[in-house]
Amino acid sequence: MKSQQDDYQEKRSTHAPWRARLHEVIFEADTPAGKGFDVVLIGCILISVMTVMLDSIDLFRAQHGILLYRIEWIFTLLFTGEYILRLLCVGRPLKYAISFYGVIDLLAIIPTYVSLFLPGTQYLLVIRILRILRIFRVLKLATYLGEANLLAKALQASRRKIFVFLFTVFTLVVIFGSLMYVIEGGENGFTSIPRSIYWAIVTMTTVGYGDISPQTIVGQAFSSIVMILGYGIIAVPTGIVTVEMSQTFSRKVSTQTCLQCSAEGHDTDARYCKFCGAEL
Amino acid sequence: MKSQQDDYQEKRSTHAPWRARLHEVIFEADTPAGKGFDVVLIGCILISVMTVMLDSIDLFRAQHGILLYRIEWIFTLLFTGEYILRLLCVGRPLKYAISFYGVIDLLAIIPTYVSLFLPGTQYLLVIRILRILRIFRVLKLATYLGEANLLAKALQASRRKIFVFLFTVFTLVVIFGSLMYVIEGGENGFTSIPRSIYWAIVTMTTVGYGDISPQTIVGQAFSSIVMILGYGIIAVPTGIVTVEMSQTFSRKVSTQTCLQCSAEGHDTDARYCKFCGAEL
Amino acid sequence: MKSQQDDYQEKRSTHAPWRARLHEVIFEADTPAGKGFDVVLIGCILISVMTVMLDSIDLFRAQHGILLYRIEWIFTLLFTGEYILRLLCVGRPLKYAISFYGVIDLLAIIPTYVSLFLPGTQYLLVIRILRILRIFRVLKLATYLGEANLLAKALQASRRKIFVFLFTVFTLVVIFGSLMYVIEGGENGFTSIPRSIYWAIVTMTTVGYGDISPQTIVGQAFSSIVMILGYGIIAVPTGIVTVEMSQTFSRKVSTQTCLQCSAEGHDTDARYCKFCGAEL
Amino acid sequence: MKSQQDDYQEKRSTHAPWRARLHEVIFEADTPAGKGFDVVLIGCILISVMTVMLDSIDLFRAQHGILLYRIEWIFTLLFTGEYILRLLCVGRPLKYAISFYGVIDLLAIIPTYVSLFLPGTQYLLVIRILRILRIFRVLKLATYLGEANLLAKALQASRRKIFVFLFTVFTLVVIFGSLMYVIEGGENGFTSIPRSIYWAIVTMTTVGYGDISPQTIVGQAFSSIVMILGYGIIAVPTGIVTVEMSQTFSRKVSTQTCLQCSAEGHDTDARYCKFCGAEL
Repeated sequence: MKSQQDDYQEKRSTHAPWRARLHEVIFEADTPAGKGFDVVLIGCILISVMTVMLDSIDLFRAQHGILLYRIEWIFTLLFTGEYILRLLCVGRPLKYAISFYGVIDLLAIIPTYVSLFLPGTQYLLVIRILRILRIFRVLKLATYLGEANLLAKALQASRRKIFVFLFTVFTLVVIFGSLMYVIEGGENGFTSIPRSIYWAIVTMTTVGYGDISPQTIVGQAFSSIVMILGYGIIAVPTGIVTVEMSQTFSRKVSTQTCLQCSAEGHDTDARYCKFCGAEL
Repeated sequence: MKSQQDDYQEKRSTHAPWRARLHEVIFEADTPAGKGFDVVLIGCILISVMTVMLDSIDLFRAQHGILLYRIEWIFTLLFTGEYILRLLCVGRPLKYAISFYGVIDLLAIIPTYVSLFLPGTQYLLVIRILRILRIFRVLKLATYLGEANLLAKALQASRRKIFVFLFTVFTLVVIFGSLMYVIEGGENGFTSIPRSIYWAIVTMTTVGYGDISPQTIVGQAFSSIVMILGYGIIAVPTGIVTVEMSQTFSRKVSTQTCLQCSAEGHDTDARYCKFCGAEL
Repeated sequence: MKSQQDDYQEKRSTHAPWRARLHEVIFEADTPAGKGFDVVLIGCILISVMTVMLDSIDLFRAQHGILLYRIEWIFTLLFTGEYILRLLCVGRPLKYAISFYGVIDLLAIIPTYVSLFLPGTQYLLVIRILRILRIFRVLKLATYLGEANLLAKALQASRRKIFVFLFTVFTLVVIFGSLMYVIEGGENGFTSIPRSIYWAIVTMTTVGYGDISPQTIVGQAFSSIVMILGYGIIAVPTGIVTVEMSQTFSRKVSTQTCLQCSAEGHDTDARYCKFCGAEL
Repeated sequence: MKSQQDDYQEKRSTHAPWRARLHEVIFEADTPAGKGFDVVLIGCILISVMTVMLDSIDLFRAQHGILLYRIEWIFTLLFTGEYILRLLCVGRPLKYAISFYGVIDLLAIIPTYVSLFLPGTQYLLVIRILRILRIFRVLKLATYLGEANLLAKALQASRRKIFVFLFTVFTLVVIFGSLMYVIEGGENGFTSIPRSIYWAIVTMTTVGYGDISPQTIVGQAFSSIVMILGYGIIAVPTGIVTVEMSQTFSRKVSTQTCLQCSAEGHDTDARYCKFCGAEL
């Protein structure tokens, strides 16, 4: 398998010069032009998301509806142009199109076009906020990405335990909800099993809207149990994630063994064995 | 004591061939037939639970009440037949009947029959959802079961500490609830001590429905203390479970047994038995 | 200083025989009589607490008011007699009277007498529930007491950190509450600073009754910050307690050093050095 | 760079004697006069904050409005005088003025003056509560400050991970809020995207006021997911902080410095410098 560097060189050389130049500006943030492009892009994203939000407020739409509508279309056309340029200048358009950022870039423009046929969908444009994740690259926040990776790793390592936990919670809320439907009944707001399951979730997660709440003595006693259970089992995912993070974060001990005394457990920055003084 | 393997062989040989065959299909998931049976079973469980849920929605029952009623009876009869077959083909019917899955299988059919005399109990059929735990066996998710066991072990190891914690919480809510009953009184919704204890649980677990909330200055000051206490002591079970999980997950006890005294539980870095001093 | 054993012997010998006998029955749970006394006592406590609770329910009081009143007085007189007997048979009455259990025993009878002059205070009798802590001694649940001690130790070790945390939270809710009072004002339910502080506590602890909630855009934006802060800083006490528990629970390594190889870190149950095999 | 001690000596000598004396009384808590000053100051702070709070209660203002108004002005003039004295007697007035305590001291007097032109701002005087942080110095609670520093250190060490976490939560609530706006619409209380984002924050943080709650089946199903997510991801910051605290609190790095290369940060069990190999 060829190294990424080679791959990149090759891509460069087979590209037309303008495509290589464009690629550098649009996809990278090393050159002043590239960085400037990304900064302008992030500004556009923020303004466009803000526009969508303001458009959803009745008072604003009534007064500035047409202006907001135009801004929306301008940004959509801009982002559409950018998307096409990205497809043109990248080495493998398909690979980009199905990558995380490629999909987000596409989803960020579709809703405006769809809203021509299906009014209301333009509010889905807020998905553009996801494009802002590029900010990490612009600001050269490699450290932040590293931290994010560590977190993702810890979560991934505990995904099976979390799945078992969620499966248990799901089973519990189905049973608790149904029991409450039988105990309280429709006259106290528990009008159906799905609605009672919704109540069980609201209660177990300790959200507690209060839009549905038990009225009978038995219902209150039973929901007390549900609450205490919900209050307590939050300890389980917390424990899982904490232990996993503790292991992921602390794997900084070198695997080197001292040639002299065979001692292990040296720090990664050690150059001499801390027990016998021999060079590592 | 005979090993399980022997026990199984013997069971096989004393069975009529059709019973052995049936046992393989119904109870195991190694053969294509056995796996197919379990997949169909899980499908039936899901559809039947869905039916019970839909039946609880007034609008659905009004329109498709008779259809849902028929589906319910068909699945109940199917599951009853399955339960009888299980009893017939298993080696020790009684042991199965009182096992976890055996009890669930029985509870999954009883409510329909009871509902003939006691309308409303058919909603308890959602207990069928527990039968779905078999899914772990079908998908050969041994890893998941392993993870579940680890979690169960960690919780079991900390059961005494959790009991002490729950006992403390129980005592606190009784006292807090009664104090609030005296402070606020019936005119502010705290109509009785049990109801005030219900409020104390809703508050300490940070659920906070808002169906009962303090109205007087003293009551609000006092409930502020209850809230901060509830907010803070969640740290206790979380701490307990985290520490226990940390120990359960990372227990790196060697599987070596001492040749001299047969003692187990040696550290992985041990070279001599810590009980009798013999070399490992 | 004399050992506790001597102290006890002496107390025994200087007591009249009936006092020694009474002390054994009332204060200890080793003899059948002593155990029987405690079991009866716990039964009485539970029934009397239940009586107080039922008495607070209007419907019950209307129907069985006089009966409940009589039961209350019977138990109060019983517990008063028991309290006097305890004072009589114990070696140092004053020391018992100011001990934890002594104070609880007194508080468990006072409210009934006070209620003669100040109606309503009889509901404070639920403090009797604290007497039930004796249950740990009856059931010889030394292990539970040990676990409780471990928990108490961990909490005590982190008391200063928790104080700093609570001080920070207290300062924050005062400032947040006052800001919301200025932002929202009385017309939206934030009628005074103390009430706004109450709102801040309800929000930061994620209880969220909803009896007071922000109505203005600025108020909602600001309270979003309060919520996320409250959601996040729960991590702080949890972290403190978990780390402290982790240290308290895991102090099980012997301080013994091997005479032969000077190795440390042996388990408390080890009799031979696990590295060189020498006797410890 | 001169040591702090020298700096202090110099400041002393160049000061007029009355300035040095004043500095000792106002800024330090070692002499009886200095301690007395601080205790009186804290008393004044508490009384003045209490006055502001009482002033915000309509009933109190109606009855004692003029009295409270006078007390407010008396304390403001007192604190203004104290602030001027501090500026006069300190060595570098500007450095004090822009320090944490200097800014707080100024903010603690400004609102009263501003309220002459802008009524209502006097309630911001509660910021005086921050001045009470001086209490730690008076009571010589160095231990508490040490604990506070440890906590601050642990939080600072995990600030990047917490930023990534908050960024993720922020992105999620924007998307969840917008989706709910499309799903539920204005007629169910989700009148605009910002308001829906407010709902998403209330729900994800498990506060759950209930002032806005989903009414449609789809909305309730979707918000169930939001709740379970919010219930679960609290594990992430808790895990981060716990792990960081565990490392901050238990860092047992030796204080030894290598005689050869002056390197620090050796493990407590190290016998040779891990960087140059010299014996420690």
